[in-house]
Amino acid sequence: MRTIVFVIINRANYGRIRSLLLKIKRNKFFKVKIILASSTLLRNFGKIDEILRKDGLKVDYQVYNHIAGENNETMSKSVGLLTVELTTIFSRIKPDIVFNVADRYEILATAIAASYLNIFLVHLQGGEKTGSIDESVRHSVTKLSHLHLPSTEAAKKRIIKMGENKKNVFNVGCPSIDQIKKINLKYNVNLKKYNFGVGYKADLKKPYIVSLVHPVTTDINESPKIVNLLLKIIKKLNYQCVWIWPNIDAGSDKISKIIRKFREQNKDKTKINFYANFENEDYIKLIKYSKCLIGNSSSGIREASFLKVPSVNIGTRQNLRERAKNVLDTRVNELDIQKSIIKQFSKKINTSSNLYGKGNSTDKIIKILKNVKLDTKKIFID
Amino acid sequence: MRTIVFVIINRANYGRIRSLLLKIKRNKFFKVKIILASSTLLRNFGKIDEILRKDGLKVDYQVYNHIAGENNETMSKSVGLLTVELTTIFSRIKPDIVFNVADRYEILATAIAASYLNIFLVHLQGGEKTGSIDESVRHSVTKLSHLHLPSTEAAKKRIIKMGENKKNVFNVGCPSIDQIKKINLKYNVNLKKYNFGVGYKADLKKPYIVSLVHPVTTDINESPKIVNLLLKIIKKLNYQCVWIWPNIDAGSDKISKIIRKFREQNKDKTKINFYANFENEDYIKLIKYSKCLIGNSSSGIREASFLKVPSVNIGTRQNLRERAKNVLDTRVNELDIQKSIIKQFSKKINTSSNLYGKGNSTDKIIKILKNVKLDTKKIFID
Amino acid sequence: MRTIVFVIINRANYGRIRSLLLKIKRNKFFKVKIILASSTLLRNFGKIDEILRKDGLKVDYQVYNHIAGENNETMSKSVGLLTVELTTIFSRIKPDIVFNVADRYEILATAIAASYLNIFLVHLQGGEKTGSIDESVRHSVTKLSHLHLPSTEAAKKRIIKMGENKKNVFNVGCPSIDQIKKINLKYNVNLKKYNFGVGYKADLKKPYIVSLVHPVTTDINESPKIVNLLLKIIKKLNYQCVWIWPNIDAGSDKISKIIRKFREQNKDKTKINFYANFENEDYIKLIKYSKCLIGNSSSGIREASFLKVPSVNIGTRQNLRERAKNVLDTRVNELDIQKSIIKQFSKKINTSSNLYGKGNSTDKIIKILKNVKLDTKKIFID
Amino acid sequence: MRTIVFVIINRANYGRIRSLLLKIKRNKFFKVKIILASSTLLRNFGKIDEILRKDGLKVDYQVYNHIAGENNETMSKSVGLLTVELTTIFSRIKPDIVFNVADRYEILATAIAASYLNIFLVHLQGGEKTGSIDESVRHSVTKLSHLHLPSTEAAKKRIIKMGENKKNVFNVGCPSIDQIKKINLKYNVNLKKYNFGVGYKADLKKPYIVSLVHPVTTDINESPKIVNLLLKIIKKLNYQCVWIWPNIDAGSDKISKIIRKFREQNKDKTKINFYANFENEDYIKLIKYSKCLIGNSSSGIREASFLKVPSVNIGTRQNLRERAKNVLDTRVNELDIQKSIIKQFSKKINTSSNLYGKGNSTDKIIKILKNVKLDTKKIFID
Repeated sequence: MRTIVFVIINRANYGRIRSLLLKIKRNKFFKVKIILASSTLLRNFGKIDEILRKDGLKVDYQVYNHIAGENNETMSKSVGLLTVELTTIFSRIKPDIVFNVADRYEILATAIAASYLNIFLVHLQGGEKTGSIDESVRHSVTKLSHLHLPSTEAAKKRIIKMGENKKNVFNVGCPSIDQIKKINLKYNVNLKKYNFGVGYKADLKKPYIVSLVHPVTTDINESPKIVNLLLKIIKKLNYQCVWIWPNIDAGSDKISKIIRKFREQNKDKTKINFYANFENEDYIKLIKYSKCLIGNSSSGIREASFLKVPSVNIGTRQNLRERAKNVLDTRVNELDIQKSIIKQFSKKINTSSNLYGKGNSTDKIIKILKNVKLDTKKIFID
Repeated sequence: MRTIVFVIINRANYGRIRSLLLKIKRNKFFKVKIILASSTLLRNFGKIDEILRKDGLKVDYQVYNHIAGENNETMSKSVGLLTVELTTIFSRIKPDIVFNVADRYEILATAIAASYLNIFLVHLQGGEKTGSIDESVRHSVTKLSHLHLPSTEAAKKRIIKMGENKKNVFNVGCPSIDQIKKINLKYNVNLKKYNFGVGYKADLKKPYIVSLVHPVTTDINESPKIVNLLLKIIKKLNYQCVWIWPNIDAGSDKISKIIRKFREQNKDKTKINFYANFENEDYIKLIKYSKCLIGNSSSGIREASFLKVPSVNIGTRQNLRERAKNVLDTRVNELDIQKSIIKQFSKKINTSSNLYGKGNSTDKIIKILKNVKLDTKKIFID
Repeated sequence: MRTIVFVIINRANYGRIRSLLLKIKRNKFFKVKIILASSTLLRNFGKIDEILRKDGLKVDYQVYNHIAGENNETMSKSVGLLTVELTTIFSRIKPDIVFNVADRYEILATAIAASYLNIFLVHLQGGEKTGSIDESVRHSVTKLSHLHLPSTEAAKKRIIKMGENKKNVFNVGCPSIDQIKKINLKYNVNLKKYNFGVGYKADLKKPYIVSLVHPVTTDINESPKIVNLLLKIIKKLNYQCVWIWPNIDAGSDKISKIIRKFREQNKDKTKINFYANFENEDYIKLIKYSKCLIGNSSSGIREASFLKVPSVNIGTRQNLRERAKNVLDTRVNELDIQKSIIKQFSKKINTSSNLYGKGNSTDKIIKILKNVKLDTKKIFID
Repeated sequence: MRTIVFVIINRANYGRIRSLLLKIKRNKFFKVKIILASSTLLRNFGKIDEILRKDGLKVDYQVYNHIAGENNETMSKSVGLLTVELTTIFSRIKPDIVFNVADRYEILATAIAASYLNIFLVHLQGGEKTGSIDESVRHSVTKLSHLHLPSTEAAKKRIIKMGENKKNVFNVGCPSIDQIKKINLKYNVNLKKYNFGVGYKADLKKPYIVSLVHPVTTDINESPKIVNLLLKIIKKLNYQCVWIWPNIDAGSDKISKIIRKFREQNKDKTKINFYANFENEDYIKLIKYSKCLIGNSSSGIREASFLKVPSVNIGTRQNLRERAKNVLDTRVNELDIQKSIIKQFSKKINTSSNLYGKGNSTDKIIKILKNVKLDTKKIFID
């Protein structure tokens, strides 16, 4: 029997591994412990603890470590503080395995605490290229991890090139695709559940777009610029739009401020409907039935490609990530963005992409976690 | 003009970059800031601040971050705490460059603080293979760094293989060799300066060996075993021996305890002379005139190879590090160690090895730091 | 010459000691160092650094220590983190004196760092009674402080009763009164400077009230209830109202949420004009010309009493603080609050109260700081 | 049923409340949780976890928070770090009561975490006078605590004078006296259990003294001076002496160094037998059968007075603590100390003092903890 700890850092994290968590906790070979940290505990960013509880998952530890300020300084300090606290908690749990997801800046804390304590560290979705600080974090974590579960073949190759032992690198696809396959996609979201958010009340039976812009940590001015342009364009086009709040990150409060100001000044003049957050299943449905997904979120590249939904990817945040044909990239420029949105709005996509897997990641992962030798000695493979 | 911050974590760190520090601080192109942290501030491990002051170097910041306990848990927490504090300090200094040395577990703190703050991060001596947690830390830091200054060709290749841009990877050799070249090696150390340490008073005009055993963080029992055997063997052989205290690390107090106990029980029965610490120059002289260097320190591999001193490398700590012909590796086994010591004690080495450089690293490094473009954007080079 | 460090934790702190800072920095006997921490660095709570710079004051250190979450847990952890960082900074500055203001929960960090480092600790405004966690913090800090500068006679007596040496306890009055006396009160604020805030645009030539409700840390539900009632009542009375955002505290985001929701639902239906923050001088002017000040802020008791402005003090937050006749206390109850507002709205107050001093605190304080013997030994006086 | 958390910070802490812990854990009304922190986890200072386990007590959480350096700076930072971690742990346990012991600098961390989280905080042994930083800490904690359990009448009066509600102040005596009463004092310690320590092997059947000198945090030079004098005097008098290692504190490594040096230089020349640590029961026996107890430990004042053992109290550390007639105070002066030792060595004391209680504290405390109203609102009682 193996004790496995999952550290969940934000709502996207949870979205990615939800199907895995729900399945592994029913598997008697594993004893699952869940630690919530960082923005998962903050109301503005969707208190994930309540969502987990609804999903029947028990939260074992909560760590408030997010230092306010939303800048590079607080990002770095938050990681330091999280390292301290996760170390105490891991030392108490003494798990066999620690499971780390993706590439948020906080995951270096999990990686340090686990690897320094000689605990077998698993990294989901290493090896991808994106070109921001996320990329450095992701590869840095790879070099501390003992088992790698990338989502694509290219990512797998990169991990091996970095000197990792290929016996411990498996392309499992992205478990968020599993998640999608399990959702009953016959119906769209009931927005009443979210009190219809703020601003215009969207009618999802009519055509609509979804917009989601996160801060770009390497260029603090990029996202505010995107948000300004996007609000203006959507107002001009007069499309129905469901707009979702950004992740908590260096720069997120700047974006929030722009949105709030726009809302105050454009009351009743746009069809934009703002939401702090959606439950994961609802988010998938929302995308599924949208005309297109706009912004710089990775879901425009991963989830949307499988869902056959066109997306407009703006700016540098997803720069180098592998993408299927549903994605139209555009620079941060009013005209370009507008043209791209119009184009994608009426595009039809016929086949679902398997670039990020076929939806069988969860079973693959559980099998690997069951059988992998928990060896924490590592040597660079020349 | 460029402001450059050096974070010094332990006495070995300082030894490695002393010649660089002394030269760069006289260069008007650079404004040098020095931060002392971790074991550099602890008396038992040689308060480095006094040594720096004697060398004419100003300490700008001191950070007590070493959490007592000397185990894996405190190692990890100490890194977290250091990350928090270095972030505050770097944000205040706003340097152009942060300079990180080698592979101690603390250097991940420096790397996170600098890279998250978008400060150009330089890493000296990345790319080497050693097979312990140090190796994971070293490579992990590589993936956060912007400029790499490895010491050997093999290390350089490894860094490039890991996806770093070869324009930013330079084999500069090891600056500790520069250090050696500048020392007046005509005379041996005057042990009076150290009050002749503790125990037997060594006479350096007669043949002697030097012994230095550090904790092995991946196997907490290895070093105590080595120390026990080594004390016994040296007593048996009745060689003159200068024994130097270990680094502060998970496991160091276990070693200290063994040494103390041995000392109490073997008073006047051995020719072992114990020292907490030597100034760097004296340490080099001491090795230079010794019959051989014994233990698991990297100086048996680096410095000794240039100094033409035989060394006995015991156990796994330096497992995979590149070595010249002066090194004889041995397993942790009484008979093997004893045979190796006897063999190396009478060996003569005629040519100095250039595996770790020719002693011109300092100038190379300063030139690179002057001209390198301070670009903090990074992309994995496939 | 004496080096004195001021740690400023929030905008109210700065308001209280602004006149002191401006005067002491021109005094050659003192070398002034200013550390900004906690909410002073957060945009939502009025970035104080910009205000200080406008005032010609230099910020020497900035410490991001505010852990997001706005609950009791993050309050406590923020204090711990601040203690760590202030210790490093105080150890670097080596000041003769550390100056601590009032009773926010963060001031225990300043008090611990200074007293443990044997630095002479001054506490402004100890000894008051308020009945919340602030009160415990305030008295706890008293027992760590070496010099006490209370604002009232009753406070002075309490400090001496607690065993402090009366030679080190001086009633200096409240320096915020000095501040008021120096302001040119001929004109009211120009709201254009604040872009007229959000919502209704107040016309300060017509009668208006000022509303300011802070979280009550001992009863997390009290303030939301007050805010709900107050918004409703002011809407009903249709008074012009300038509403100011709360302090960052456990509970502040709950208040913010209520306000935002109200604003969205009552657009154009009220005469409430919302502001994140005012510069201190403008805040004083705003009160001066208002009909009355409503809420649970201490300024309704201190500043308003000197300014001859009626105030309605709601709920338990200022429970036990000494008050002049301008204050009308009321319970958290719709009818009571409404009656009190109507009553105070038309009250006239003729004489300024000297309960919190006559406006000569600054000079008194500087004189004491100059002459006090910096003795850090303390004994309980029975 | 009430959940009660005990935070144990050092071996003296545990000694004081051992009898309470053993009894309360068998009481079904209480659910006991034990947190070990600070020096309790460090080998050099007697790893308390093993002692607790032997006593049948379960350690629920371990917190490494002691930052190495043994100076005022690390003292303060250790408290900050402990505050952060205890907050996370208390928030997880959600206890009804937190129990804080005596006056070590770390207890402010416990007090802040508990009081800020609105948890009912009990303080054992507040109100005493000692005149060092301990005194400030002790009184500062009093002002954050909700229930006070002082050991003497004078202490009780002082707590009430400080404005605490007398309904929540109980003189329960010192539970260390209970502890003593339960020990089988017929036999002295078997030193073999401790491998006869280091140095001379004491024969406890012959007359001997016990020596214990802790650092004095307000005057870093006092204790080294005492230790130097004391070693010299005991050597001169040629008394048998059992010497116990100091607490970990700012200054403790200075003392350790002096002792080690003395030991190396005076091998076989004295009858001093050094021990790192004794189990509590053995410590009591050791004192009981000694001729006198020498140094600056509080046990010379508390335990010794009940045990009818003369003590020599040197220097300022226990300056103002209430004492019975067994104590002879002396200044830090060779002649004075020597005379006092000789005098006390041959003194006979006939009656046990009840100044610190009669040995029924444990029952009193449990009764109070069972019945006290857990009200966390506090107001200064004028």
